[in-house]
Amino acid sequence: MTVRSQTIAITKIRGNLRESVDDRLAVEEPLEIRLGYEQDGQRHTRSISITMRTPGDDENLAVGFLFSEGMLRSADELAIVKPCRGDNTIRVELEAGVAVNLDRLTRHFYTSSSCGVCGKASLDALRVQGVDRLSAMGGQFSRSAIVGVPERLRAAQETFDETGGLHAAAAFDPQGDLIVVREDVGRHNAVDKVIGFLLSEGRLPAQDYGLMVSGRASFELMQKTVVAGMPLLAAVSAPSSLAVELAREFNVTLVGFLRGGNFNIYAGEERIA
Amino acid sequence: MTVRSQTIAITKIRGNLRESVDDRLAVEEPLEIRLGYEQDGQRHTRSISITMRTPGDDENLAVGFLFSEGMLRSADELAIVKPCRGDNTIRVELEAGVAVNLDRLTRHFYTSSSCGVCGKASLDALRVQGVDRLSAMGGQFSRSAIVGVPERLRAAQETFDETGGLHAAAAFDPQGDLIVVREDVGRHNAVDKVIGFLLSEGRLPAQDYGLMVSGRASFELMQKTVVAGMPLLAAVSAPSSLAVELAREFNVTLVGFLRGGNFNIYAGEERIA
Repeated sequence: MTVRSQTIAITKIRGNLRESVDDRLAVEEPLEIRLGYEQDGQRHTRSISITMRTPGDDENLAVGFLFSEGMLRSADELAIVKPCRGDNTIRVELEAGVAVNLDRLTRHFYTSSSCGVCGKASLDALRVQGVDRLSAMGGQFSRSAIVGVPERLRAAQETFDETGGLHAAAAFDPQGDLIVVREDVGRHNAVDKVIGFLLSEGRLPAQDYGLMVSGRASFELMQKTVVAGMPLLAAVSAPSSLAVELAREFNVTLVGFLRGGNFNIYAGEERIA
Repeated sequence: MTVRSQTIAITKIRGNLRESVDDRLAVEEPLEIRLGYEQDGQRHTRSISITMRTPGDDENLAVGFLFSEGMLRSADELAIVKPCRGDNTIRVELEAGVAVNLDRLTRHFYTSSSCGVCGKASLDALRVQGVDRLSAMGGQFSRSAIVGVPERLRAAQETFDETGGLHAAAAFDPQGDLIVVREDVGRHNAVDKVIGFLLSEGRLPAQDYGLMVSGRASFELMQKTVVAGMPLLAAVSAPSSLAVELAREFNVTLVGFLRGGNFNIYAGEERIA
């Protein structure tokens, strides 16, 4: 059965009230797309892409991806489209005689299958990278400091009010004061700019800073938070299931729906006084 | 000078009023990150990533990216970080003796430099792919059909109301009726699921359907719209500069800030009656 959302226990902060409730999260899991094709009379299989997606309709996701990237021209070229090796891999086999332009692949996210395609493997990859679980004591943030960050971030955004089209990321200290703010059409870029700044300033690992992002908290953003050694990620909107899993595994505090003076805590509640 | 936003002429639709105004867009351009390192006593240079970003603070973006991906461990490892070959490439040279784990690259978006790193080259890449400019006559949509789509999309989203954490994409006909709706933590995945469905159903190129997406309209989403032969992309939020450029180049209608019965037209106004 396809699981597209899951229930977890979280803490809701509403003004001075703190409440334990069940919440529903959108599931985020990696999907590997493998392409089988004929070349010089032989069948080949190649891992084309791993994308972080919500399970469901994976065959169409794989086919739509290959089509929009120009590696597939029509449904007639498809011989087999089906899951293989578990739920997080789709195998697309092209009909014999269909030419594949592998050069096109060089433009795209591709990957060895060894990096794994389940959440567990993604977490392991971080561990292999030598990133440690944060100590329980690193970083303490008061409720009032956290709820003040979104307004400061908005005030600091130079371009947002002008275009309405930029994401923002900021590092903030335990008092909620902003250390650095960056904007970008891509949220991950805004975060990379913040992390690059902190690195250049010799402030990594940033054990006393929180990271604030506009929009949602995905696995990718939590991964960057973990690698930068930051004890808290706060997002204006919802986190994904894998972001929560990663936060709990590496002992990072994860705050979501931070707006209007309220927020939810998905992991690492003990850092918030 | 770094240009992070730009002015273009657009059409604002407010109820029955149609008004030509100047608007500011967030600039989106590709940045290539090139890594120089020593191996076996020789210097090598490799293109590591091309990311669609808003110009500004590119050195920190490159360094932050390399750090969060585990290819750089500290600022001490950096010898040179500077733009090269124009404004859209950053060259990062590591100190002699710093080991680089190239296997890690296989997990990431990497690319040949031949795909180009300016908007122009990205547009050319589509043209080379054999995608044609849409004919002026393909697809006509009434104002009332377009303004009704967001509400229908929201009503059709099974999981959104539950988690608040999913993006949605839908194909709709000239009457604004939804043909297919898909949700995902990644907006590009939701669009690929829609396109994969249309392909499987033999409905591509979808010359009579519009594509609606939650959130913003980036270059990547406009690229998928163009390849699917769809004459209209509508987004709840702002488009990027490169999305508008691509829409105008390929004669696709681009609607943004579609909410509350109002919207902006950034390209292809003649398709909207």
